[in-house]
Amino acid sequence: MTRILIHNSQTDELVARLSEVAPEVEIATCNSYDSLSALLADFRPDIAYSICFKGRAGFPSEALLGPDGPKWISVGGSGIDHLATWDVDKVTVTNSAGVAAPMMAEYVFGAILHFTLDVPGLAVDQAEREWRSARLMTPMKGKTMLIVGLGHTGQAVAARAKAFGLHVIGTRARPQPMDNVDEVHASSDLHDLLHRADFVVLSLPLLPTTHHLINARSFAAMKPSAILVDVSRGGVLDDAALINAMRAGAIAGAALDVFETEPLPFDSLLWGLNNVIISPHCSAVYAEWAMQSFELFLENLARWQAGSPLKNIVSPARGY
Amino acid sequence: MTRILIHNSQTDELVARLSEVAPEVEIATCNSYDSLSALLADFRPDIAYSICFKGRAGFPSEALLGPDGPKWISVGGSGIDHLATWDVDKVTVTNSAGVAAPMMAEYVFGAILHFTLDVPGLAVDQAEREWRSARLMTPMKGKTMLIVGLGHTGQAVAARAKAFGLHVIGTRARPQPMDNVDEVHASSDLHDLLHRADFVVLSLPLLPTTHHLINARSFAAMKPSAILVDVSRGGVLDDAALINAMRAGAIAGAALDVFETEPLPFDSLLWGLNNVIISPHCSAVYAEWAMQSFELFLENLARWQAGSPLKNIVSPARGY
Repeated sequence: MTRILIHNSQTDELVARLSEVAPEVEIATCNSYDSLSALLADFRPDIAYSICFKGRAGFPSEALLGPDGPKWISVGGSGIDHLATWDVDKVTVTNSAGVAAPMMAEYVFGAILHFTLDVPGLAVDQAEREWRSARLMTPMKGKTMLIVGLGHTGQAVAARAKAFGLHVIGTRARPQPMDNVDEVHASSDLHDLLHRADFVVLSLPLLPTTHHLINARSFAAMKPSAILVDVSRGGVLDDAALINAMRAGAIAGAALDVFETEPLPFDSLLWGLNNVIISPHCSAVYAEWAMQSFELFLENLARWQAGSPLKNIVSPARGY
Repeated sequence: MTRILIHNSQTDELVARLSEVAPEVEIATCNSYDSLSALLADFRPDIAYSICFKGRAGFPSEALLGPDGPKWISVGGSGIDHLATWDVDKVTVTNSAGVAAPMMAEYVFGAILHFTLDVPGLAVDQAEREWRSARLMTPMKGKTMLIVGLGHTGQAVAARAKAFGLHVIGTRARPQPMDNVDEVHASSDLHDLLHRADFVVLSLPLLPTTHHLINARSFAAMKPSAILVDVSRGGVLDDAALINAMRAGAIAGAALDVFETEPLPFDSLLWGLNNVIISPHCSAVYAEWAMQSFELFLENLARWQAGSPLKNIVSPARGY
């Protein structure tokens, strides 16, 4: 009998759904980081559906990937930077990258339009009851968007960008022609593209090669009118460099959903910046996500049971 | 020699561009409402490019459409509700509808995403330095948008709505299948569609038949979670009904670019509403608009000179 562990803060609905779809499996649940190791030794699951549900700090990566761990770990979420590396001959890791891509793309455009339409300025005028008839809008249409990382999220952003009439350029590790992207460049070309971008979207994983990819030198290359949206992972962006850049007016606006330290500490200088949207790593978090992500796992479970190749297998060497 | 009058608050760039494209024409300019009548009598233009540059009140419609007026009036803008009616055998009126449609569509999505992403709530949390990890986003994807009026602007909104994965329904005077609109209904079906819409976009002209089209009965039919965006004309929406609806929580949010009285008076109750974006009739106003609208006129001027049918001819009976 296949033993499946569900590791998440909330498991009731997932257990109910799994029992419905696969009544033959044996199910255990774990809703803490600390107790996972003991549970693995006891239950010895074949499969784990695991969510990094309260941040990277303290996540029991070694236990999950250790000798008592499952043969297949299905990560609920797209980032796997909370896991140590693993031996692909012993364990398969999949993720649910793509499930939240449409939601994250909405965050990206909501953030950009917040600045291009000057919604904060409209709110000031409203509070002062001032009809500022000389107000001008700033079109996105015709402008250039640089998407750093053209995975599921980057592609969802690109599709919407084309509908808005943007010129879309992007980078990815293995450049190849893609729908909705006018120019696909290699990751190594990033620095030479920054000066062309009116909007810079970060949608790539945190890897040794992407740590502080966006740094002081990057901000120096960007247009003063540029707007940056970060829906990647904390650490891709050098937060200290961003603080300096925003204070110096090196770019016009930023929307930040991820941070080097999460939760963002009360004394972080980021909170006090102007022209910044700060959100608590929630651009991919919506009520329907939990079940949509789990449905992708269930689809993969059927493949597993049929002996078919799994979808969304993560390469530890590549990191996504 | 063809005599062309340019009637706008600012005319220098337009005159320069016209002289460049059509050096053979005779040009006069007028930058007030009061002096137009005398200038028409003196200059007797064949053609006028005319912008309603300081509101409907006092616009010299009778003079422009009178016996000293031109044979062709090219209105810079889309609304022609500042004009009295005219005899189509004596004068042709065109407009520049469509030029600003992409900009207005950006306004629509910026406004909707402002509410669905709860940008105001994020700003409160930022000011309080509070990391609210339980925050949930609300996807637009899969929701239903009702577009009231499927002209240039409505169609530009629909194209972007499809890219976001919305179900798009709409109304128009003459329903027929259209790209990017899942269901095209007759204008008379509006009331029966309102309860289905998560987002209601008003993008139709002000006509006797559309005055107070959206009224207390409409708000009673809408979802309490609905978001309304009005980029039509003041008077399509019953402002008093909106005030009551917002105060009663009949709908969740509204973005208003047009008003029954413009400029919106200091003592208007609209200024004080929560969950409302107010903008000073600027959703179609951006730096490049003036020249883009004029380029459409110049394209039509070439047609006029060649004896070809003009584009964007307005029917006084239809009103657009």
